[in-house]
Amino acid sequence: MSKAPNKHPQSISKVPESTKNDAIDRFKRKRQKKVSVQTIFEGILAKDTTALSRGITLIESTQEDHTTQAQQLIEKCLPHSNKAVRVGITGVPGVGKSTFIEALGDLLIQKGKKVAVLAVDPSSTISKGSILGDKTRMESLVRSRDAFIRPSPSGSSLGGVAQKTRESIILCEAAGYDVIIIETVGVGQSETAVHSMVDFFLLLKLAGAGDELQGIKRGIIEMADTIVINKADGDNQKRAREAKNQFRKALHLFPLAESTWSPQVMTCSALKKEGIEEIWKVILDYLDITKKNGFFEENRIQQNKFWLLQTIEEQLKTSFFNNPEVKKEMNTQMEAVQQLKTSPFTAAKYLLNLGKKQ
Amino acid sequence: MSKAPNKHPQSISKVPESTKNDAIDRFKRKRQKKVSVQTIFEGILAKDTTALSRGITLIESTQEDHTTQAQQLIEKCLPHSNKAVRVGITGVPGVGKSTFIEALGDLLIQKGKKVAVLAVDPSSTISKGSILGDKTRMESLVRSRDAFIRPSPSGSSLGGVAQKTRESIILCEAAGYDVIIIETVGVGQSETAVHSMVDFFLLLKLAGAGDELQGIKRGIIEMADTIVINKADGDNQKRAREAKNQFRKALHLFPLAESTWSPQVMTCSALKKEGIEEIWKVILDYLDITKKNGFFEENRIQQNKFWLLQTIEEQLKTSFFNNPEVKKEMNTQMEAVQQLKTSPFTAAKYLLNLGKKQ
Repeated sequence: MSKAPNKHPQSISKVPESTKNDAIDRFKRKRQKKVSVQTIFEGILAKDTTALSRGITLIESTQEDHTTQAQQLIEKCLPHSNKAVRVGITGVPGVGKSTFIEALGDLLIQKGKKVAVLAVDPSSTISKGSILGDKTRMESLVRSRDAFIRPSPSGSSLGGVAQKTRESIILCEAAGYDVIIIETVGVGQSETAVHSMVDFFLLLKLAGAGDELQGIKRGIIEMADTIVINKADGDNQKRAREAKNQFRKALHLFPLAESTWSPQVMTCSALKKEGIEEIWKVILDYLDITKKNGFFEENRIQQNKFWLLQTIEEQLKTSFFNNPEVKKEMNTQMEAVQQLKTSPFTAAKYLLNLGKKQ
Repeated sequence: MSKAPNKHPQSISKVPESTKNDAIDRFKRKRQKKVSVQTIFEGILAKDTTALSRGITLIESTQEDHTTQAQQLIEKCLPHSNKAVRVGITGVPGVGKSTFIEALGDLLIQKGKKVAVLAVDPSSTISKGSILGDKTRMESLVRSRDAFIRPSPSGSSLGGVAQKTRESIILCEAAGYDVIIIETVGVGQSETAVHSMVDFFLLLKLAGAGDELQGIKRGIIEMADTIVINKADGDNQKRAREAKNQFRKALHLFPLAESTWSPQVMTCSALKKEGIEEIWKVILDYLDITKKNGFFEENRIQQNKFWLLQTIEEQLKTSFFNNPEVKKEMNTQMEAVQQLKTSPFTAAKYLLNLGKKQ
């Protein structure tokens, strides 16, 4: 369950008020309390980015009263959501995600679209939000009135981080953003989570560099609706074209997706803003095809059902693994399993019995 | 929780004892009660297939006392397990899995190995065990004293079916089987479950037939340690060779697996028993490499940890979704989510609150 650090204000005073972050957090909390859910909601509908930021901060908060308010806000925004195009973008560090997102975002803004960029980065708790730094790399997007950029929520579990981002999409859509770009850093299972919240999933790659160097996880290639080979400029152009052809042939051997869409392979230079228009056209083609054949809507329905079940599972697991009795015995059981002293099933049964005690 | 149909014997007599299956089930249950866990265990160690069958029947039973006995049996067998090679085999219906398994099994028996064939087929509840019929297609294996064939356990959830098979592996290993082949029918997520319980994962394919016809799921190709193109005989040979070359090139573009193993592509004719020896050699190569670089053992440890967590999750979900309050409201909430009347997160919260009531 969520923490409620303010429940015992008398104990708070004992904590030294030393760090600047603490002070900022407290200030933020006080400021938020003054603003009602209804006011934030009206601000969001009026396309006020301050209100939108405040709403997302509510979603990201672990305070219990904030969680309740966040749920109310999401419910209010829900009838105004579901209208944007949701694009997931992944690729390993160094592939040029920020530059690509800026190039695509700039193009969309030129076309009169409003663009929101969100992120799912479960490692951000340690790095204090690795794509926060990217704001400096998306200079023109940051300056644009039609763009909204938000770093990854922090959190210890991918499930929690992903859920917050998934909820933030609803607010961004209510605030009138036409395209929601969800960036993920390509570690572990975060692509799968992002794949479950977007309409279109794009994998950025580099030509030449073997994937053993790029560190991409298995399974991602088959998830992609389009593979884009970035940095196809200068001396790299020939290699990028070759890589494109190789991937085209390879994807041809893959099973057809449920959407009936054949994944495309393209090249671009995000830095020189070349090939970006063509990629947007592919996304539009995809939307056209999947809206006509019904997959687009069906996929969103399935995704919503997935998130319902996923949220339940996540909460069940959180409660269980935070049970003090379970916590105490978890490592011992894991070690016993590792040393073949007990079977995974007996260990699970033992822990489940502990979990029943409160 | 598991059902205990025999708890109220007075009510049993009211049920008409009409069907033959009922009578057989009761007979089986009575017979099992007579045999102690210790006797079954000793039988398994003595390589008695009747004892092994009985043990697996205990594992598959949903009766509470059987579940306890099964856990005892597994714990006893555990120190005698972990010795066999576990090979997963998948492919869509019609690809020739039974014929392939028979050809591979016969070869291994010729080499002096003992072979157990298990299956994970969550659809078997409806079809009453689709690979049960396959026993007739594995005639020579069925006749061999060195082979043990067991159809898929039945069950409504993949998690449950997979867990039972995973537990049965322990018994088969204690019974001295050298190679455990786990067959899966290639629907839904069953490949992922099987992939999590084997050392080596083999995907059977046909040349020529596009995957859109074969109905294989996305993501499976990247999971395979080896792709084998079956039915490479007669007029099909040329096409099979071409398919092999295409797949080889395609796999080259994939990220390197953690095992550092480069997935192989091979052809065979299971019917004519051609190419089977070569496939076994590839499996031996894989074992050699992964045992030397430590991946083999590390993978088994990770798999055991995975099954510990998986069993807990499965049980938490089962308890929750079988809660009568939750059951009553589940569909209503799902529909509300589908019609965008509520968010997946609010619906989840509502159901989680219901689940707290007993």
